[in-house]
Amino acid sequence: MILPEMTAAEAAAMIANGDLLAVGGFGPAGSPKVITPALAQCARTEHAEGRPFKVSIVTGASIGASCDGELAAADAVDRRLPFSVNAEMRKAYNTGKVRYTDLNLSDNASHLRQGLTGEITWGIIEACDVHEVYGKLRIYLTAGIGIAPTICRLAKKGVFIELNTWHSSKIIGMHDIYEIEDPWFRAPIRITQPIEIIGLPYIEVDPSHVKGIVLTHLPDEARSMNDATEVTKQIGHHVAEFLKWNIDKGYIFRNKLILQSGVGSGSNAVIGALGSSPEVPNFSIYTEVLQEEPMRLIQEGRIIAASTGALTLSPEHLLDLYRNMNEYRGRLLIRPSEISNCPEIIARLGICSLNTAIEVDIYGHVNSTKVSGTRMMNGVGGSCDYTCNSMLATFTCGSTAKDGKISSIVPFCSHIDHTEHYVDAIVTEYGVADLRNKSSLEKAEALIAIAHPDYRPILKEYLRLAGVYGGHTHHVLSAAFALHDTYRRKGDMRLVDWGEYIRE
Amino acid sequence: MILPEMTAAEAAAMIANGDLLAVGGFGPAGSPKVITPALAQCARTEHAEGRPFKVSIVTGASIGASCDGELAAADAVDRRLPFSVNAEMRKAYNTGKVRYTDLNLSDNASHLRQGLTGEITWGIIEACDVHEVYGKLRIYLTAGIGIAPTICRLAKKGVFIELNTWHSSKIIGMHDIYEIEDPWFRAPIRITQPIEIIGLPYIEVDPSHVKGIVLTHLPDEARSMNDATEVTKQIGHHVAEFLKWNIDKGYIFRNKLILQSGVGSGSNAVIGALGSSPEVPNFSIYTEVLQEEPMRLIQEGRIIAASTGALTLSPEHLLDLYRNMNEYRGRLLIRPSEISNCPEIIARLGICSLNTAIEVDIYGHVNSTKVSGTRMMNGVGGSCDYTCNSMLATFTCGSTAKDGKISSIVPFCSHIDHTEHYVDAIVTEYGVADLRNKSSLEKAEALIAIAHPDYRPILKEYLRLAGVYGGHTHHVLSAAFALHDTYRRKGDMRLVDWGEYIRE
Repeated sequence: MILPEMTAAEAAAMIANGDLLAVGGFGPAGSPKVITPALAQCARTEHAEGRPFKVSIVTGASIGASCDGELAAADAVDRRLPFSVNAEMRKAYNTGKVRYTDLNLSDNASHLRQGLTGEITWGIIEACDVHEVYGKLRIYLTAGIGIAPTICRLAKKGVFIELNTWHSSKIIGMHDIYEIEDPWFRAPIRITQPIEIIGLPYIEVDPSHVKGIVLTHLPDEARSMNDATEVTKQIGHHVAEFLKWNIDKGYIFRNKLILQSGVGSGSNAVIGALGSSPEVPNFSIYTEVLQEEPMRLIQEGRIIAASTGALTLSPEHLLDLYRNMNEYRGRLLIRPSEISNCPEIIARLGICSLNTAIEVDIYGHVNSTKVSGTRMMNGVGGSCDYTCNSMLATFTCGSTAKDGKISSIVPFCSHIDHTEHYVDAIVTEYGVADLRNKSSLEKAEALIAIAHPDYRPILKEYLRLAGVYGGHTHHVLSAAFALHDTYRRKGDMRLVDWGEYIRE
Repeated sequence: MILPEMTAAEAAAMIANGDLLAVGGFGPAGSPKVITPALAQCARTEHAEGRPFKVSIVTGASIGASCDGELAAADAVDRRLPFSVNAEMRKAYNTGKVRYTDLNLSDNASHLRQGLTGEITWGIIEACDVHEVYGKLRIYLTAGIGIAPTICRLAKKGVFIELNTWHSSKIIGMHDIYEIEDPWFRAPIRITQPIEIIGLPYIEVDPSHVKGIVLTHLPDEARSMNDATEVTKQIGHHVAEFLKWNIDKGYIFRNKLILQSGVGSGSNAVIGALGSSPEVPNFSIYTEVLQEEPMRLIQEGRIIAASTGALTLSPEHLLDLYRNMNEYRGRLLIRPSEISNCPEIIARLGICSLNTAIEVDIYGHVNSTKVSGTRMMNGVGGSCDYTCNSMLATFTCGSTAKDGKISSIVPFCSHIDHTEHYVDAIVTEYGVADLRNKSSLEKAEALIAIAHPDYRPILKEYLRLAGVYGGHTHHVLSAAFALHDTYRRKGDMRLVDWGEYIRE
C-alpha cells in the first residue's frame, strides 16, 4: 500500500473544531513539529471569518513551542492535558482561556484507554522511519515516545505521521514499546532492571489507519541547560553526601543505586554533581527525561545504564548522540510515559528520586506546581509518580527566591502536590533535612535548620505562636499564609508582622 | 524442643527501657492482649521508683486498647508508628508526650527491613496454634497479620507469642503469608486476583527465636459498628449510583468490580448500601479491614471474594464467622499489611477505593487526618496506599459536622493528605463530584454543588473574591482559612466575615 503523503496544511485541514488531538513525543523530544503550526493557521483563518475553532490537546508530557506555543497564541485550544511548560500556554491556562487538567503522567495513557479523557479524534506522531511488513506498518519513533502507542491504537479518524529525516535511523532499537493492559486484565509488568526489554522496537498499525505522511527535516525544540550555579552545586554536593550516608547506613544498597532526576537545569546540575562525587558509586538511571549531564556520565561510564521517556537534548547534543549511538546500545532505552513513570516499576526497582520544589512547608509538604498557590508554573508532570513510589524521595530547592525576598521554606505550602506521607528528604544549599521516622515537630526542626538563616527565626516564631494551639502539627491557621500575604503586600516575606494575622 | 511457657508479667519483665517493640495484628484484630498491660504495670513500678521507662511501639496498623491505651496511660511510650485510633494514645501524641510518626501502612514493613525505623528489640504476636515441623516452628496467626512476618524475622532479642485459645484454629488456612523482598532484589508480586495465594498459611521461625509463650483466652478488642445514619445511607446510595454510571460509561469493567473500603462505621454503611443496591453487580473486595457488612454480603453471595488485612469484627461476629468458616474457604484471605495495602497490587487489580474524608477543599484536596490542621484524629493509615493507586479513588463525607457549624467542603484544607492529583471523586449526602478530566475551576464548581446548601453561597463568594488574583487555581491566601478561623473564634463557620481576612 502506498502511504498518503501530504503537506502539513493538508493534514491540518482535515482537523475540525472540537476535535481531541493526541500528540506523540515526551516534552519537546520526538514531538511532531509542522502540522500543529499549520493548524494554528487554520484556526486564525476560521476565527477571522467569525467561526469558532478550538481543539483539545493531549500529549505525553509537555511539548515543543510549535504545538503549545502556536496553538495557544492562535487561541485554538479548549482543553489541555497533562502537562505544559510553554509560556504562551501558561498565560492561557492561568487566565482561564484554556481548561488545563494537571495530570500525573503515568495516568495519562490509562485515562485515554478508559475513555475518561474523551475519544481521540486524530493522532499526530513523529517517526524516523516506517516499514511495511506482512501488511502491517511498523513505525519507528524518534527521541521521545510519550503516549504514541496508545494514540496509534485509539485515534478514531486515524494518525498523521511526521516523517522527520533530521533524526537518525540509528535510534531504531533504542525504543521499548509496551502498552499497559487495562487494570481488570493486567499482568505484572515484567521490568526488574532499568534496561530490561519487554516490548517491541516499533509501533505496529494497520496502514489504512495512517491518514497522512508529512515529510519534515527539523530538529527537536529542546534547549541547552543553564550552567550550574553556586546554589545548585552546593545542593548537588549535599545530595551526594546524603546518598553516600544512606549507603553507609545500609538504607540503600550500594551495588544497585538507581536514580531518577526531574526536569530542568537544577536537576541536570545535581546529576552532574553526583557524577563527579567520588563517594557516590556508579549508578543507573530510571527516569522520564535524560538531559545533558546524564548523557555525558553514560559516556564516562559513571552511569551504568539509563531508561528514560525521552532524550531531552539540544540539537547539537542529540546529533552527537546519534553519531556515537553504538556506544549506547544495551545501556540506554526509551520507554512510553506510562512505563518510564510506572509506579509498579519505580517501587520495584527501589529508585531514589530527585525532584525540584517551588516551596516546602515546615512539616514536609511540597509545592511543585503553583506559585502563591494560584499561578500554575508547569504542572505536576511525573513528580508524583516518582515521589509516591520511590524508596527515597528527595526534593531540592534553593532556600530563597527573588534575592531572599521569598523563603522556599514556609509555615504552610500555598499549594500541596506532595504530602508528608511521601516526602523523605529536602535539600537546600544549607544541607539535608531527613524526614524519615520523624514526628511532625521533629520534621519542623530539621526543615527550619536548612532554611535561609534570615528565615530561621521567623519560622521559629511561627512555631512558637502555633504551639499555643497544641496538636500533633502546630499551626495558627489565620497566620499560616502570613509570609505569602506579606510578600504580596510588602514585597518581602521578611517584613512579616505576625500581629497582623493573629486575633483572639 | 519445649517452648518456654511463661506469664505475661515474666515476658514483660524481659523488656527494657528504650526497647523498640514490634507488635503483630492489624488494628484490634489478631493483636496480642496481655503482655503490654503487664508492661504498663512494669513502667508504673519503674516510674514510682524514679527510673525512666519508655518503649517505642510499631504495629501493623492501629491496635487494641490493651496496648495503646494501657501503655499511653502509663506514660510508657516514646515513639509510636504507624497508626493509632486509641483515645489515650491520641491525647498523648497531640500533647507531644509521644512522638508519633504517621506512616503509610504499606511502607511500614519495608522501613523496618531497611532499618529506617531502628532495630526491633522484641516482637509480640498472637497465634491460635503453633506446630514444630522438621525443627522449625510454624506459627498460625489469628484475625489479623499486620507486620507479623517481618517482626518474627527481625526482632533482635526474639519473639513472644500469645497463644490465644479464644480464636478458633479453623482460621488456619485463611492466611497468605508473604514478605516483600527488598527493592533492589524484588520480583513482581504475583497477585492478579483478590484471593490468589502466593505465600504460606503460617510464619516459620527457628524455635529458639521464641523467647516465651503466654497462654491467653481473650476476644479481640474490636467493637460493633454504629448503625447507618440517614446521611451515610444517602452517601451509600450516591456511591452505588456513581459506580453503576461508571460501569455504564465503560470506565469500570462490570465483571470485575473490586472495591476497597476504609475503616469505620461510615465505610461499613456504604458497603452495606452497595450490597443492597440492585444496580451494583456482584463484586469482590481487596481491602485492609473487613467489617460486619462485607462479611454479611459474602454470606449472601453479593461479595464474590474478599482479601483483607484483618477481620475487624466484634467478638460475636467473629465467633459466628468461626462457626461457619467452611463457607468462607476459597473466598476469603487475610494478608500481611504490606500486601493488603500494596500499591503494585492495588493498581494492577484496578480497585475502586472508598475512604472517609474529614474535609475536602474546593479543588479536590482531602484532609483525612487532622482536625483544624493540628489535632491528629487517627492517622493516614492505608488511605494513601489505596487512593494513590486505585483506578477510581472516592472519598465520602457528610457535608457538615457539629450541627452544620462546620462545612466539610472548605476553600483550603487545613491539612492535606490526598492531593488533587489522586482524588477522583467526592461524595456527600448531596451527590457526587466527579473530578476526573476537569480543570481546577471546574472541580470547584462540582464540589460546591455538593456542599451543604448553607455553605454554597459562602464558597461561591470566596471564589469570587479569589478570582481577582487570577491563576489556574483561585485563592486569597489571607482568607483561605477564614472558615476555620471563624469557627474557632465564633463557633460557626457560617458567621464568616470575609472583610476581616482581606486587606490590600
